[in-house]
Amino acid sequence: VWRMRVQAGVTTGRVQQAARENGLFYPPDPGAAEQSQIGGNIACNAGGPHSFKYGVTGDWVTGLEVVVSGGRRVRLGGATRKDVAPYDLTALFTGSEGTLGIIVAASLRLIPAPEVAWPMIAFYPDTASGSAAIRRVYEHGLQPAILEYLDQGALAASAAAFPATLAGGVPLGAAFLVIVEADGTRSSARDLASDLTETLGEGALAIQLIDSAPAIRELWRWRNGVSFSVRAVRGGKMSEDVAVPVERLAEAIELTDRVGRESGLATCSWGHAGDGNLHSSFLVDAGDPAEVAAAARAAETLFAGVRALGGTASGEHGLGLVKVAQLPLQLGAEEMRLQTAVKRLFDPDNLFNPGKKIAI
Amino acid sequence: VWRMRVQAGVTTGRVQQAARENGLFYPPDPGAAEQSQIGGNIACNAGGPHSFKYGVTGDWVTGLEVVVSGGRRVRLGGATRKDVAPYDLTALFTGSEGTLGIIVAASLRLIPAPEVAWPMIAFYPDTASGSAAIRRVYEHGLQPAILEYLDQGALAASAAAFPATLAGGVPLGAAFLVIVEADGTRSSARDLASDLTETLGEGALAIQLIDSAPAIRELWRWRNGVSFSVRAVRGGKMSEDVAVPVERLAEAIELTDRVGRESGLATCSWGHAGDGNLHSSFLVDAGDPAEVAAAARAAETLFAGVRALGGTASGEHGLGLVKVAQLPLQLGAEEMRLQTAVKRLFDPDNLFNPGKKIAI
Repeated sequence: VWRMRVQAGVTTGRVQQAARENGLFYPPDPGAAEQSQIGGNIACNAGGPHSFKYGVTGDWVTGLEVVVSGGRRVRLGGATRKDVAPYDLTALFTGSEGTLGIIVAASLRLIPAPEVAWPMIAFYPDTASGSAAIRRVYEHGLQPAILEYLDQGALAASAAAFPATLAGGVPLGAAFLVIVEADGTRSSARDLASDLTETLGEGALAIQLIDSAPAIRELWRWRNGVSFSVRAVRGGKMSEDVAVPVERLAEAIELTDRVGRESGLATCSWGHAGDGNLHSSFLVDAGDPAEVAAAARAAETLFAGVRALGGTASGEHGLGLVKVAQLPLQLGAEEMRLQTAVKRLFDPDNLFNPGKKIAI
Repeated sequence: VWRMRVQAGVTTGRVQQAARENGLFYPPDPGAAEQSQIGGNIACNAGGPHSFKYGVTGDWVTGLEVVVSGGRRVRLGGATRKDVAPYDLTALFTGSEGTLGIIVAASLRLIPAPEVAWPMIAFYPDTASGSAAIRRVYEHGLQPAILEYLDQGALAASAAAFPATLAGGVPLGAAFLVIVEADGTRSSARDLASDLTETLGEGALAIQLIDSAPAIRELWRWRNGVSFSVRAVRGGKMSEDVAVPVERLAEAIELTDRVGRESGLATCSWGHAGDGNLHSSFLVDAGDPAEVAAAARAAETLFAGVRALGGTASGEHGLGLVKVAQLPLQLGAEEMRLQTAVKRLFDPDNLFNPGKKIAI
């Protein structure tokens, strides 16, 4: 019945695997899927590359069991796919970062697994040509399952590990990488891949469809290591998770560059281009307090710039302790009042993850 | 950028049309799309046939402008596709039936329009064979855009208006109709239609793929009239909107029948089989107080039976005034306490649609 009930401590990878073993598909795929637990994914409404076509974690949650103030266990929603009788507290708890109560179990909706899922990589000489290619995917009305990018810095940091078998390796002069995925039936994926080849091909240095299972694994193994490669450049990094309206993506990439330059820090960004969700990273020697302080200041400047673009300080990771000051800057006074009132209502004693997401 | 900002008073039909005129698709399609306003759709988190593949209204809303207690206007969410910084008040207001505040505008997410959308109809001799066919769609992992049914009573009421050109008209002995839709690219829809023909063909009296534009229009014109045909049988009807976990669908259809029989009322059901969402209807002479009272009692019995199946009193219409007593019966005491607290928090003076959805 395309459904799964899980305890909060099950890893995302195990959820994905259990679905696959039954011919089904749980689409959300945060980068840390092998380590992260589904309860945590729900608590921060985790995204990932496949959110572009399939939505974020919350789009797949039909019910929760939570422990609320007073220690009482409550079921919200359940196994029905549609229910508009109560207020949607399931959605309210999703993304609440454990600050309204503790998620202990969830009902997840699944879909039939696509027959194939073929990535395609396209290299560009600069951010301008790469982000123009991303814009054309929108303009041409194409719906790949993912639409990702790496900028020059992210590509440079991870180029040494790039599989030489794919597109003959990173082409000379490549400074921007776009990754898409054509999924569905074999025939529809073939059609979409053909349209994407045309759309992404314009201005590309190299483009390749990757449709063999070993090559697909190689690509993802490399892609999952990008964050580590970036960290290795200077030994540490401060990585943000900003999101902007998708038409402002190129501006947000340039903003990241500019802020880094002005801060004297090595800087790069990559992430979920189709959702306008960037992981903007400032690379530091974690043992150098001056660099760490410069990165913290750079992050503040980045957030301010992202707000000016109509964006948010967090697309998929949450605010936690570190970004708690961003919320009042981002919201109007009246919404901030409502947010605070919701926290106080569900957690009057400030026991659930106190100080995180929202300071009361 | 696959997005639309709308005032609350725009009709759903106009939203759908504006999307189509730009090669895009706004999937939610409640039955009253030509009359209903998008603000109302959001307020009751409206569904419709396409919810089976594409989700309900709330899955397409990224931001709202609402007027809250005190008359202040607040923006929730916005144009970003992902934002986990604040609590998701957009989702909380969606489906709140205007009881937390007034929705005045919304940001909607869109997707590229599918190239084709071909309905397919399959007639069965009884509920058992028809619901077995629906179950096989799930078992075979097929994802049509819609998965609808009409039971014997609904089919009988509307058979006279059924287009003779489709499947040669309603076959003799038909007592259950399944409607699916294969959408996507032409080739993938062709593949899916072929799989569906095999899956739905077993036990069917007749099955037909409808892939010409005039025939598709004829089918939907007829389908949109079913509710009126059912009403015409006795002059009035009390139509409920229950939903159950999808594997309990056949039981819910039989429950509707049994309750009607025991109440001495003509009865039928139809609706969104794939989402386990039934429109269970008791047909009455609206001028006969005894019949109307019997129908009201029948509805209570139906709701109790649906609760026993793990279902809800409303899948997509909301509770309004009439079903407000169902909420405490459906929820546990602790969740009911939370629901009431949310209403009091946002509407301390009980000014927003007082008495609807939740009685405080």
